[in-house]
Amino acid sequence: MIVGGGFGGLRAARALRRAPVEVVLLDRRNHHLFQPLLYQVATAALNPSDIAYPIRRIFRSQKNLKVFLAEVKGFDLERKRVLLEDGEQPYDFLIVASGARESYFGNDAWAKDAPGLKTIEDALEIRRRVLLAYEAAERFEDPARHAAWLTFVVVGAGPTGAELAGALAEISRHTLARDFRRIDPAEARVILVEGVDRVLPTFPPELSAKARCHLEKLGVEVRTGARVTAVDEHGVEVDGERIEARTVLWAAGVSASPLGRALGAPLDRAGRVRVRPDLTIPGHDDVFVIGDLAILEQDGRIVPGVAPAAMQEGHHAARNVENALAGRPLEPFHYVDKGLLATIGRGAAVADLGRLQLSGLIAWLAWLLIHIFYLIGFRNRLLVLVEWAWAYVSWDRGARLITGPPEEPSSSAPPE
Amino acid sequence: MIVGGGFGGLRAARALRRAPVEVVLLDRRNHHLFQPLLYQVATAALNPSDIAYPIRRIFRSQKNLKVFLAEVKGFDLERKRVLLEDGEQPYDFLIVASGARESYFGNDAWAKDAPGLKTIEDALEIRRRVLLAYEAAERFEDPARHAAWLTFVVVGAGPTGAELAGALAEISRHTLARDFRRIDPAEARVILVEGVDRVLPTFPPELSAKARCHLEKLGVEVRTGARVTAVDEHGVEVDGERIEARTVLWAAGVSASPLGRALGAPLDRAGRVRVRPDLTIPGHDDVFVIGDLAILEQDGRIVPGVAPAAMQEGHHAARNVENALAGRPLEPFHYVDKGLLATIGRGAAVADLGRLQLSGLIAWLAWLLIHIFYLIGFRNRLLVLVEWAWAYVSWDRGARLITGPPEEPSSSAPPE
Repeated sequence: MIVGGGFGGLRAARALRRAPVEVVLLDRRNHHLFQPLLYQVATAALNPSDIAYPIRRIFRSQKNLKVFLAEVKGFDLERKRVLLEDGEQPYDFLIVASGARESYFGNDAWAKDAPGLKTIEDALEIRRRVLLAYEAAERFEDPARHAAWLTFVVVGAGPTGAELAGALAEISRHTLARDFRRIDPAEARVILVEGVDRVLPTFPPELSAKARCHLEKLGVEVRTGARVTAVDEHGVEVDGERIEARTVLWAAGVSASPLGRALGAPLDRAGRVRVRPDLTIPGHDDVFVIGDLAILEQDGRIVPGVAPAAMQEGHHAARNVENALAGRPLEPFHYVDKGLLATIGRGAAVADLGRLQLSGLIAWLAWLLIHIFYLIGFRNRLLVLVEWAWAYVSWDRGARLITGPPEEPSSSAPPE
Repeated sequence: MIVGGGFGGLRAARALRRAPVEVVLLDRRNHHLFQPLLYQVATAALNPSDIAYPIRRIFRSQKNLKVFLAEVKGFDLERKRVLLEDGEQPYDFLIVASGARESYFGNDAWAKDAPGLKTIEDALEIRRRVLLAYEAAERFEDPARHAAWLTFVVVGAGPTGAELAGALAEISRHTLARDFRRIDPAEARVILVEGVDRVLPTFPPELSAKARCHLEKLGVEVRTGARVTAVDEHGVEVDGERIEARTVLWAAGVSASPLGRALGAPLDRAGRVRVRPDLTIPGHDDVFVIGDLAILEQDGRIVPGVAPAAMQEGHHAARNVENALAGRPLEPFHYVDKGLLATIGRGAAVADLGRLQLSGLIAWLAWLLIHIFYLIGFRNRLLVLVEWAWAYVSWDRGARLITGPPEEPSSSAPPE
């Protein structure tokens, strides 16, 4: 039984395809989401279905696997049951890969005014807010009212935050440049706020400096060593200074899925499960935790919460299930670091490949190739390539639609 | 001042591009929607942004035009003002093209259990329901519970209803055929219910017969001369006979936008405004009503509520504005009927081109060409072509995502 159809869960399921087992994959979504490109949906460059793919379709030909759409509520590890909203499912081995969501560091009230970016719905909500902000500014003749609508604050300068800020700056300078009459979209301010002293803190300092330089060239105001102390619907407070901004996006903290707590295993402060070296939890040789939900220290460093790590762990958990079935001892997991990549706008990226550090166009081409390569499904790869090629030659973003929940048709009108 | 960015409003705005006027286009959406292909979004073949295009982008180079995102609440025809939710806008000439929505013939309570198909949100809701129905059926071992989940009822066999039913049948027979383990999607029943005695009632009887034959070949159960007498969340009643169906889609009635009533002009039973031959309303030479919101009889026949008619009316209203400005008399509108087209699944369609009647593959190719040609924007045409080509060779539908409003994350779990 595998809980979660992200990178870790998918890889685990695939690695069991020739094992003499029956695999059940549970997810509360019917699709796998290619999260590294989610910011491109939020900034209207890609369509949801370009980066999401039905899980069922992925495993069409894996006959020992069933996919169920279901929300997991908890576990009964003694009776070996996964508890669902409407029933339960027995298991022999359990792999939990339910991932993480954004954390507001205890200020959950900020979520309403500063949405995070973890799901397709999040991305569409951000797209709606960003596009509506320009529409609202255009409606009112008084330039004094434009400023707050045309100020965008991104909190957190990890890869997601840096990519979002870069894309927002590009939208205002290029994509929308000629579409408005009263406002000049290029007057929009994009402010990137980061608590530590540099952007992309998980990268080497030289690459952080290059990324910052790229971002500033795009027009992003970068504020490092700065803390957000308040968020409301009219703006944020950064170290006590008030910034009027109608659009605030949250890319700062990560907190593990609440399913970690339900396992009864030791957790770290972010709610991640402290797994043993073989990826099981203490006292339960038959329960594995992988991906962003797990925390594991190796050679003095923490295995990072990135897609390649989740995939390696998924593969390893599957191998250990086979070991257990064959009566062999479980093996410890060993993470192979393949490097880090982040884009900062059109034609620019930074890559930390261990000894090799790249930046600029060449890093961006590497980023492009790797992301296209890992995107699931030939059709998706082809369409994303067409979208990107078109966007590259035209500066246009195809998915500039403001859509909203059908329950509130009036929400499409800009609020005062 | 033009209210509504559908086919009529867009054409009117475009026709005024060289006129010595300032044009303001108001819509409560930021995008024009290519409604004839909306059923393809509802059945997961196309992405929303393939058939929707930002209005602002369309008019980027038309300098005498402003686009505002705003919800119109009413009109003050004496003071020449359009009343908005948050203010008002003055006008000299007014063109109202706010279209129509579905009508439940007085049974508005049915809307919840039988959604219609008029907006992107409608299409995504239908997609969600259809895909969830298969997921729910797969979850439960008891075959008795599968039947109601795998029964789809489409009410109304006009072009939208016939196209929806055909696409639903294809999904179950081909797209999903190998993706499930417990259920066989091909067991799904698609029932098309129509009140009059034939499908596609606006087409000649011979083409209706051909369309019915095609639909039945695809596996659709066609029930003509049958009335839906009740709808609830577990099924429908057709002429008193109960059909258990968890998914009911509404494509039956059309009722004009409520803005028609706000004009104070005479209406027909569907709420459409009875316009004069020059498309103005009685007593107001400066107020034009066009598209699905208008009703006009010509040579004993009603001008149909189709996109070409709306576009011709939009063009004509713009010409009459220019006539009025130049002191010339307003001219009566004359509708040129270019024919009717409807698809009924892959490689089959019917076309009524006056003297020429086509059906089968050749009509489908005509349909394909015409729709690709009229789709706005080169990028959209290209992407739709790629999507269709891929779907044609692979039987796959790319946009098979179940997404929902972010407020209810648990709604992605199938209800009991």
